Amino acid sequence: MTEFLDLSQTAQRLCDMDNVLILCHKNPDGDTLGCGAALYWAFHALNKQAAVLCNDPIPAQYDYLNIECFEGQFTPAHVVAVDVAGIQLFGDALQRYVDQIELCIDHHSSNSGYADATLLDADAAAASEIMYDLLGQMGVEITAQIADCLYTGIATDTGCFRFANTTARSHITAAWLMEAGARASELNARLFESKKPQRVEAERLALNNLEYYFDGRCALIYLTREDILSSGVAPSDLEDLTSLPRAIEGVEVGLTLRQQPGGSYKISVRTTDEVDACAIAKRLGGGGHVRAAGCELMGNLDNAKAAVLAEVKKELARCEQKE
Amino acid sequence: MTEFLDLSQTAQRLCDMDNVLILCHKNPDGDTLGCGAALYWAFHALNKQAAVLCNDPIPAQYDYLNIECFEGQFTPAHVVAVDVAGIQLFGDALQRYVDQIELCIDHHSSNSGYADATLLDADAAAASEIMYDLLGQMGVEITAQIADCLYTGIATDTGCFRFANTTARSHITAAWLMEAGARASELNARLFESKKPQRVEAERLALNNLEYYFDGRCALIYLTREDILSSGVAPSDLEDLTSLPRAIEGVEVGLTLRQQPGGSYKISVRTTDEVDACAIAKRLGGGGHVRAAGCELMGNLDNAKAAVLAEVKKELARCEQKE
Repeated sequence: MTEFLDLSQTAQRLCDMDNVLILCHKNPDGDTLGCGAALYWAFHALNKQAAVLCNDPIPAQYDYLNIECFEGQFTPAHVVAVDVAGIQLFGDALQRYVDQIELCIDHHSSNSGYADATLLDADAAAASEIMYDLLGQMGVEITAQIADCLYTGIATDTGCFRFANTTARSHITAAWLMEAGARASELNARLFESKKPQRVEAERLALNNLEYYFDGRCALIYLTREDILSSGVAPSDLEDLTSLPRAIEGVEVGLTLRQQPGGSYKISVRTTDEVDACAIAKRLGGGGHVRAAGCELMGNLDNAKAAVLAEVKKELARCEQKE
Repeated sequence: MTEFLDLSQTAQRLCDMDNVLILCHKNPDGDTLGCGAALYWAFHALNKQAAVLCNDPIPAQYDYLNIECFEGQFTPAHVVAVDVAGIQLFGDALQRYVDQIELCIDHHSSNSGYADATLLDADAAAASEIMYDLLGQMGVEITAQIADCLYTGIATDTGCFRFANTTARSHITAAWLMEAGARASELNARLFESKKPQRVEAERLALNNLEYYFDGRCALIYLTREDILSSGVAPSDLEDLTSLPRAIEGVEVGLTLRQQPGGSYKISVRTTDEVDACAIAKRLGGGGHVRAAGCELMGNLDNAKAAVLAEVKKELARCEQKE
């Protein structure tokens, strides 16, 4: 059982640490990286040793976070995880650390409580929102570099303040970060306005694989391993593709199936207000949030489709009964 | 010469008014309508007569603003314009009022000063940001209805907080509006997230027709008449498709060719900072702005492509010489 901490307890523990290894989740997004980088820069400002470790390379678009990656430059005395809901999300390269995680800072309500202590704030749209408050408690000045990191986390996790998880707090934090020097305009252009040709090609292939189910209440796109390889797209560039099927008018459940190198299908479930994405994903061994969840299924495409569609059907039926 | 007012002077004048006609600009967007609707609801709360007038019908997606349109239900004693930079933007139907505009509330630095008095705040990302401050000065409570109106204005004018005009103030105002009951999540879904299945199908067909030229510096998509008809998409739903080719990394000129009912091709030219879209379009008998222009070409697809690509080639060469 993890010990749940509040903000000031967490801040105190962080202030007492040195030689800290900061772990991000695999297939890193802007929030785990932005939050991890902000914590790194906070330790740096406090003259503490710290570095970030992630299972996968950090995508080039996040270069400006200026993350110092862990390459054995010190012996970690403390291990802290940011934005990681469960140990399976660390990836193979980080499994050697999963028993040593002293502290986890997260905003996923599905957090499994794997760390010795956890600061969990499921009302936060991004772990970076929690980190902003935490750095305030730690007395760390929000420099322009830290502001860029935290803005990145909030902006990416909220789809640039467009997704349903965006709250007044997300906007207020963004305002403070802009006042502190976050280059919102440059970062938005970089993160949201530009698509690599490979990503466009992957989108073309995904749209050619678009299927509707249950009278258009569910839309599904998929990319086989062959599609992904032929497009040349990087897996991290496919993350926001998952919002595509749900954005179609009338669609309550949007599914994105991406075949992984081992052959399994990673399934992203995105839903409207009424439908519980997490319930669908959980029944297939996954997890996540009410409107955005995911799971991974072995077997071929037809089996993966059939399995997830069966759960979608149940969840849609449950919603109808509730109405 | 217009008299420039500050916030409290403007608030005082508005508080002294009754029977107010509120004018929006033609081809209305979320800001002119949201700002106008908020002012209407403020007058309503103060038990004053007011109504909104616009040259064009109010698009159905803005139904929730619950705008009361002017249909002669009172004799206007005061005429106020919101978010209208110059008299040509009122449209033909409103020209009879242009000499009677007592007050203009605007955020365009290009405002021509056509009104008797003007509250101009060019630092505001949206007129709705100014209106929020103004209603506060007037002592009007920000109801959930008003909050929806003002959120609409700010969100649409900032591209949901993505465009370069977004400031800390935009975010703070959005936060306050959400606290006041703005249904940000529902409105974002309505304004930014929703695509008709027909539009998605048209996008699929366009991506299947994506071609690169000049080492990837130019990207072209096209939709034949057959594509458009088979997708079932409405022409108005194809407008923002024109931003697609230019959004690809490395692309300096994005071209979108849409075949018209008569067989000709309507060509949209979108460019990066350095390349003059208007120069390309003008040489083909069209026109527009530096980064967004258009023209129409008779003849078949191959001829239309060849003609526009020849001009793109010249313009790219001209840019290279300049460098």
